[in-house]
This record gives sequence, C-alpha cells and structure tokens, in this order.
Amino acid sequence: MSKVKITNRKTIHIEWGDCDPAQIVYFPRYFAYFDACTAGLFKKVGLPKRKMLKTYGIIGIPLVDLRATFIAPSRFSDTVIVESEITEWRRSSFCVRHRLFNKNVLAVECFEVRVWAVMSDADPEQIESRPVPREVIEMFSADNDHGPARRRSRRKK
Amino acid sequence: MSKVKITNRKTIHIEWGDCDPAQIVYFPRYFAYFDACTAGLFKKVGLPKRKMLKTYGIIGIPLVDLRATFIAPSRFSDTVIVESEITEWRRSSFCVRHRLFNKNVLAVECFEVRVWAVMSDADPEQIESRPVPREVIEMFSADNDHGPARRRSRRKK
Amino acid sequence: MSKVKITNRKTIHIEWGDCDPAQIVYFPRYFAYFDACTAGLFKKVGLPKRKMLKTYGIIGIPLVDLRATFIAPSRFSDTVIVESEITEWRRSSFCVRHRLFNKNVLAVECFEVRVWAVMSDADPEQIESRPVPREVIEMFSADNDHGPARRRSRRKK
Amino acid sequence: MSKVKITNRKTIHIEWGDCDPAQIVYFPRYFAYFDACTAGLFKKVGLPKRKMLKTYGIIGIPLVDLRATFIAPSRFSDTVIVESEITEWRRSSFCVRHRLFNKNVLAVECFEVRVWAVMSDADPEQIESRPVPREVIEMFSADNDHGPARRRSRRKK
Repeated sequence: MSKVKITNRKTIHIEWGDCDPAQIVYFPRYFAYFDACTAGLFKKVGLPKRKMLKTYGIIGIPLVDLRATFIAPSRFSDTVIVESEITEWRRSSFCVRHRLFNKNVLAVECFEVRVWAVMSDADPEQIESRPVPREVIEMFSADNDHGPARRRSRRKK
Repeated sequence: MSKVKITNRKTIHIEWGDCDPAQIVYFPRYFAYFDACTAGLFKKVGLPKRKMLKTYGIIGIPLVDLRATFIAPSRFSDTVIVESEITEWRRSSFCVRHRLFNKNVLAVECFEVRVWAVMSDADPEQIESRPVPREVIEMFSADNDHGPARRRSRRKK
Repeated sequence: MSKVKITNRKTIHIEWGDCDPAQIVYFPRYFAYFDACTAGLFKKVGLPKRKMLKTYGIIGIPLVDLRATFIAPSRFSDTVIVESEITEWRRSSFCVRHRLFNKNVLAVECFEVRVWAVMSDADPEQIESRPVPREVIEMFSADNDHGPARRRSRRKK
Repeated sequence: MSKVKITNRKTIHIEWGDCDPAQIVYFPRYFAYFDACTAGLFKKVGLPKRKMLKTYGIIGIPLVDLRATFIAPSRFSDTVIVESEITEWRRSSFCVRHRLFNKNVLAVECFEVRVWAVMSDADPEQIESRPVPREVIEMFSADNDHGPARRRSRRKK
C-alpha cells in the first residue's frame, strides 16, 4: 500500500492587528500562522502540542532553518487557506512545507526545518536534538490520519 | 576611493514577551527584530522610515524572499547585538543580511530580499515595485554615513 | 418590539506562540483576540472591517479606554470561547464587553471604549472622532443580525 | 529618612511592525511595551527577570487587573518615553503605573495589578500567589536603587 501524504488545511481570517501601515500582513505574522499550521498538522494525526510535549518529554520543535517566498500580499478581512505537509523526515529533524492561498492563488510559500528537541540534562539552559520517535513518523502514514483520509483508507481494507 | 560598507549595529534586550513556553525567543519575533534593524540601517544614512515613505512616495519595502538559519537560542534577559548591511542593490529590490550575536557567538543569520514598493495607480489594493532611486543607493556610500565612518572618510580627503 | 442584544461568539484555539515562558497566554495577546472579536461583532451585522472603513470613510475604531480582569490563565492547546457585545452607544464612542470562557468558566473579562475615528482634514497625522452613524447603530438591532437571532426575530413577526 | 520612589524611564522607538493599518501603534503592543517596562523596573533594583525567577522560585508576575487610557496616538519613527513605578505593595500582589510620553505629552497611562506567582505543588498546571518577599519590597527603597538616586542618597549620609 502506498502511503498517502497527510495534508493539513487551515482557514485563517486575516485580522487588522496582523497588518502593518502598508495595509498588508506584517510578514513576521505569517510565521506565527505557519507555526500554528505545523501544530495543526501534528494535532491532525493525534498529537495536539501539549500532549506531544508531555508524551515525548520534548520542550518543542524549534526551527533551525527557514525559507519563505512572498508572492502576493494579503489584507485584513481576507480569508486565506494554508496547506501544510511534512516533506521529509530526517534523523532528528524534519521539513515542513506551507502554502498560503488567497482566492485560490498561491500567495506565500514557506519551508521550515525543525528539530525534535529536549532540554539538556547537563545544562537546563541548553537544548539538544533527539531522534524523532518511529511511532511519531508512523502517525503520519495514511492509516493514522484522523480526518477524511483515514476513513477513505479504511474503506479500502 | 573604495566604498566602505555601511553596517548598522543594534543592541536588543530580549523581553519575556518575545519568548515562548520553551523559554526561548519565539522565532517570528526574530523577524520583527530584523525588520526594525533594516529600518535602523536606513535611519543611519538619514532616512528614518516615516521620512523615507514621505520623501519617495513609497508604501514600504515589503519582503519577497527570506532565508534564516537559527544556530543557537536566546532567552529573556539576554542582550544581543544585530549587525545589518545591504549586500546587493538590484534594479527595484535589494538584499539585506542580518547577523544576531549572543555573547559574541553568531546565533541567527537572516537574508531578506525587499522591494521598493508603491501603491498601484490603477488599483490602490495592488502593490508595484519601482527602481530604487539612485540617490538612496548613494546614501549608502561611505560619504553619506551619518556615523563615525563618515568622519573617518572625510579626514582621508 | 424589544431589541435583542447581538452577541458574537468566537472560538479561539490558543497557540504556542500566544504563550510566554510561564506557559500561559502572554496577556497582550488577549487584547489582539478581543480586537478580532470586536471586528467579528461588526462583521456579524454586515460590516467586515475593510467594508466598514470604506463605507464610512473612517480610519478605524481605536481605543480610548480599556479595563480587563484576568481570572484564570489559559494555555496552548486550550480552546476558548469569547462572547462579545456592545453594551453602550455614546455620541462618537461605544463600549464593548468581551468575556473569555475556558471550559465554561469565565477566565478573562474586558471592557473597551472605542471611538469612531477619521483622519483630520487639517492635519492627516491627527485623528478626530465623529458621531457614530445612526444606520450603524441600527444594524445592531435584532432585525439586522445576520445570524440565528435574525431568523428567530423574523419568525416572531 | 523618607523613601524616594524608584522610577524607571525607558526610551522606546516605535517600530513599523508595532503599527496597524491606521498608521498608529496597535494598542496591544503598548501592553508589551509596559510589560518590558515593569521588567525594567525590577532590573533597575537588581532583579533582571531571569534572576528574579531563579532567586525566588516564581514562574512570573502575571496580571490580574489592567486599566489603560489612550490619550493620543503614536506612530512609527516616533520615540517615546515610559515612566514606570510601583504605586502600592499588597500582600501577594502589587500595582504598577506606566505613563507613556510622546514629545513630553502624556499619551497613554496604564495601571497594572500583578501577583507574585508560583506553580502549584498539587497541580503543575495551576498557578498560586505567594506573599511578595520583604527583601524584594525593600529593594525598591531609595538605598537599593542601582541608578543615580542611590549615589545621591549615599552622599547624603
């Protein structure tokens, strides 16, 4: 069985306070949106952030690398959709791609590289990466999708 | 005479509200810091943002491309220094590099590509790029540095 | 016919980036939530913010006074509900009350006083208040509710 | 000896990203400023936030009550000054007053009530208040001011 890639779709209403004096989204706010979208992606497979931290003893999934392309601006009162998916699992890091669509047109694209991070035993102010647990990666296979895709794949059995 | 590249150094005190539950800077906040650093760079050559917008009739200098590498985390009560400089002038865009140092160690590096942007005459909701004015680029030559570098270069004459 | 007060209910998922190192919502974020809730209240009666600004030539509805009581903290991964309503119309200002509930318990209460604001003709950097248009106030009567309350009140006729 | 009230003065450069489409400071940003000013007040008497949390085992000094009056707007490229002082010590809470001046005119006034907070032993998701330590309150007497006031008062002896 080939695995279906799990995609999270999040609808975001652009708020007044997300915009700057040029009347468009202040670009750092996009990264707060995308951070929430990554959280939404994990929630979709059964790992809301608070549960994820508690279950695996991590302090978070901080970024080590980020790239973004801003193709078209968005404005307050716009409603946009962000599609997010994990594009690669590495040993102790993983890549997430977000695509923000405004009126069906790709407006922003973003690539995150994040690490599976714990507090250092030696120094609680240091952060260390750990291998991403096998079971977390497996949650992203189609069988663990908690959305329509799961029901589809179950029907196939 | 070879031109001295103008660098802006900004000291930033990391605040409690810039940090997330992992006790480290919430990464979108770095981009707000860097945005202020780009503004500081223009202010250094004599163009505080409000004056820049009024003088040249632009609505801002929005981003079209962004890359960042997060090397080490920073925490509230840390004081960091950001060094910013324009690394390339293109026709209607330009590249800015920011390097954030925490205790003299490079902690975050960021590359922005920004456009010189005006409101479209045809549709005030559209943004169009315009060539960066020659005189703005020239302000970034050593002779227009409003800091110590200017005085140094004048003494040389 | 007695007027039914229009209430907007907004469900908010508390995000990681809304929280501070104490693991709870960083309090200024509540005010961004409430600002979005006030916008949601006007949208409910047919005035999404961009339309409201364009229709009435205002630059916004800035605050002149704010009071808030924080009764219980909320955390990332919590889902909260905010109930908002206009409690008083004055000549050129109005009062909004927001109540944020977490698991049905009142967690934050906030009172805003906002003005109906235009840019000054004499000095575009000054803001002046204007009387709230009669038709805007009337939109908040039950007959103009765009939600279930409207259908209820119509049935009554 | 009568005690001199300790005041913290913080100069803030209003950034583009602090402003909204009305071209003025987005009001929740003021509360992030003031939060940093309260932290600056404690730092002034020798308690930078990270040290304060570690020394007294608290998780922070969260708000229970807030009032603010917005008298005049501020804009990007403005430089403002915030004067902050503790106006009252209660058993396990205290009151802070912030006054933001733009060109020597009072533009925003804010009153915070904050609690001295620890994590509950019984439930780490609960927050409990504790009496403010006597020595913390004493740090705010003139003799513990780490600024010019201290030197003045010592000369008096």
